Amino acid sequence: MQAVGLITEYNPLHNGHRYHLRQAQQLTNADCVIVVMSGDWLQRGEPAILDKWTRAKLALENGADLVIELPVFFATQPAHLFARGGIELLSALDCTSVVFGAEHPELDFQRLATAIAARQGSFTHYNATFATQFNAALQAATGVTLTAANDMLSFCYYAANQTLAHPMQLLPIKRRQADHATTTIAADSRYASGTAVRQAALAQDWAALKPVVPADTFTALTTQRLQRWSDFWPFLQYQLLTVDVARSGQYDQMAEGLEYRMQAMAQHATTFDDFIHQVKSKRYTYTRLQRVATAALLQLTQAEVQKAQAHNYLRVLGFTPKGQAYLHQVKKQLPLPLYTKINQDLRQHALNLDYRAGRVYQLINGQSQDLYRQPWRLPVTIG
Amino acid sequence: MQAVGLITEYNPLHNGHRYHLRQAQQLTNADCVIVVMSGDWLQRGEPAILDKWTRAKLALENGADLVIELPVFFATQPAHLFARGGIELLSALDCTSVVFGAEHPELDFQRLATAIAARQGSFTHYNATFATQFNAALQAATGVTLTAANDMLSFCYYAANQTLAHPMQLLPIKRRQADHATTTIAADSRYASGTAVRQAALAQDWAALKPVVPADTFTALTTQRLQRWSDFWPFLQYQLLTVDVARSGQYDQMAEGLEYRMQAMAQHATTFDDFIHQVKSKRYTYTRLQRVATAALLQLTQAEVQKAQAHNYLRVLGFTPKGQAYLHQVKKQLPLPLYTKINQDLRQHALNLDYRAGRVYQLINGQSQDLYRQPWRLPVTIG
Repeated sequence: MQAVGLITEYNPLHNGHRYHLRQAQQLTNADCVIVVMSGDWLQRGEPAILDKWTRAKLALENGADLVIELPVFFATQPAHLFARGGIELLSALDCTSVVFGAEHPELDFQRLATAIAARQGSFTHYNATFATQFNAALQAATGVTLTAANDMLSFCYYAANQTLAHPMQLLPIKRRQADHATTTIAADSRYASGTAVRQAALAQDWAALKPVVPADTFTALTTQRLQRWSDFWPFLQYQLLTVDVARSGQYDQMAEGLEYRMQAMAQHATTFDDFIHQVKSKRYTYTRLQRVATAALLQLTQAEVQKAQAHNYLRVLGFTPKGQAYLHQVKKQLPLPLYTKINQDLRQHALNLDYRAGRVYQLINGQSQDLYRQPWRLPVTIG
Repeated sequence: MQAVGLITEYNPLHNGHRYHLRQAQQLTNADCVIVVMSGDWLQRGEPAILDKWTRAKLALENGADLVIELPVFFATQPAHLFARGGIELLSALDCTSVVFGAEHPELDFQRLATAIAARQGSFTHYNATFATQFNAALQAATGVTLTAANDMLSFCYYAANQTLAHPMQLLPIKRRQADHATTTIAADSRYASGTAVRQAALAQDWAALKPVVPADTFTALTTQRLQRWSDFWPFLQYQLLTVDVARSGQYDQMAEGLEYRMQAMAQHATTFDDFIHQVKSKRYTYTRLQRVATAALLQLTQAEVQKAQAHNYLRVLGFTPKGQAYLHQVKKQLPLPLYTKINQDLRQHALNLDYRAGRVYQLINGQSQDLYRQPWRLPVTIG
């Protein structure tokens, strides 16, 4: 059996994702479609609208054969680390190829990644102006600048892939939505951006939503509690009001002095949006601030995140019979630990950051995220 | 002018407290009645039912001339430290005498305190069995055992007082309620325990409450939001779910290994009472556990509490004209800093623990506890 891999967030899974899943299989003729997916906290530093179990099930119902959780210490990171974590997991599962969307799939990402490899040390360490520094280096080395989010992410997949002993085949494909940030759902369209889908769901605009998401996603969005940052704001504010700045200065991705600014703004801010707006300055992007806010909420320190990143693992969220057969095939030679259930030891050690991330999410959605959960086995056969 | 001092919590101020205030003045014929009062967090490790400003105003309306806040790093401590903090403040204000209630005021506390002074080192450091160790030492030195809460506190006042260069005159008086823990309000009685008053207020049993509290207290209890531990439970649970045990092990009054137990019980507990009940064992009293829970909620570490205890201060919550005149008289020779308003520097440094304690309380009651607040000046003269 051969496998194709995807690195995803599915926040939530919409028709564009479904199309992408099918295209990945058709393009590669793979026997098994493997999805690495962020858990309850996402790359833009925000909670997923639906929890990881619901989103994993939707993936299995719409073309995935095996869903693996991207641990929180990679999922809530800047593009190059997010990409590194995902590529590492797909490679560990011996995927032959990886398919992903890009705004400009015609770009020669391989050439760009090779050209910049020598300069890697100068920008792989995260800081306030990562995107700027990255593009300066890329511009200097190749004359090219990447501005679109998925072009940049695509580049990061190439950069991560080329560090592997056995690189996978990378297949960038055209995204169905040119503009990731389009926030409206066009009439008569079967496709919309994730942002538009989330806005429609939160506004309970079911009529607009229905045409652009699979039936299972529609059911999930109409029946489950939908999470957003404002749900967690009371906890974040409380945290920033009580933590010592010597401690908050150690939170992951915190910039020098930002801990004081966050502490000061937490005193009077009344909502999460208000808070981020007050903290915002030219030095920090909104995404960066949201990621720091996520680290603060989860009390993730830079030290524990970096330590965890050196010990990636395969956490199984679900599989189809094909996915199970594939897992069985590769099980014996896996270079990373494989976890299907969480026990007391994993909760306190190897999986402690994911457990913590899920437990905080659970404070709002009320569904256990780790304890007592077992991977989905789809399709469910009755009888 | 001469002053008499009281060390109080007023949770909330009831007829017994009012009687005590008048008796203190009459007994000493003092010109000024000074009250040192816990702020928003109390000695038993719980939030005050009414905030410190409301309670300070009630004190001024019922016989106090000057109200000083006992800082949180003394207020939420075991008896000997609570007493030390209070005695230090009254002594700094040059009080001539201190009046306090005891179950057995006829005891020769002075003799007991003197007898045990030599052994002090063996029990003044807080640990799981402070009361037991204390009584063992007292028993060995004097043949006496103190079991009633206010007898023990009285002893601690004597012990703290005798370490002063100029000890004050201490006057223990009989409490009007023999049993501090009586939880019901007797029909036709004008007096009830604090526990009974709080229970009636939380149950909105206004008919039972009215005869046993001053009119101002009655108004406050019927019109203001009443705080209790359950209000803060979501924040405490969130904190215990996200904090690293290496960090929570540093919280003030945490016992060895207790941080693991608290973390484990926080996973499944659904209410504060449920949580404390699950954590409870023979090794820890309920009061001890509540104090540790308070430290966890406020993220107070043992290191910062001990550091703060070496820098006590006089935070003024309110005064009458007599209190103001007395303050004016002693102002020039105060051995401790006097604060009447909080500014940015005080908030971040000298008063940061009290500010934090008040800011968390404010998350529930919605009233600023420090910023923009000025001492009460009573009586208010209109026109």
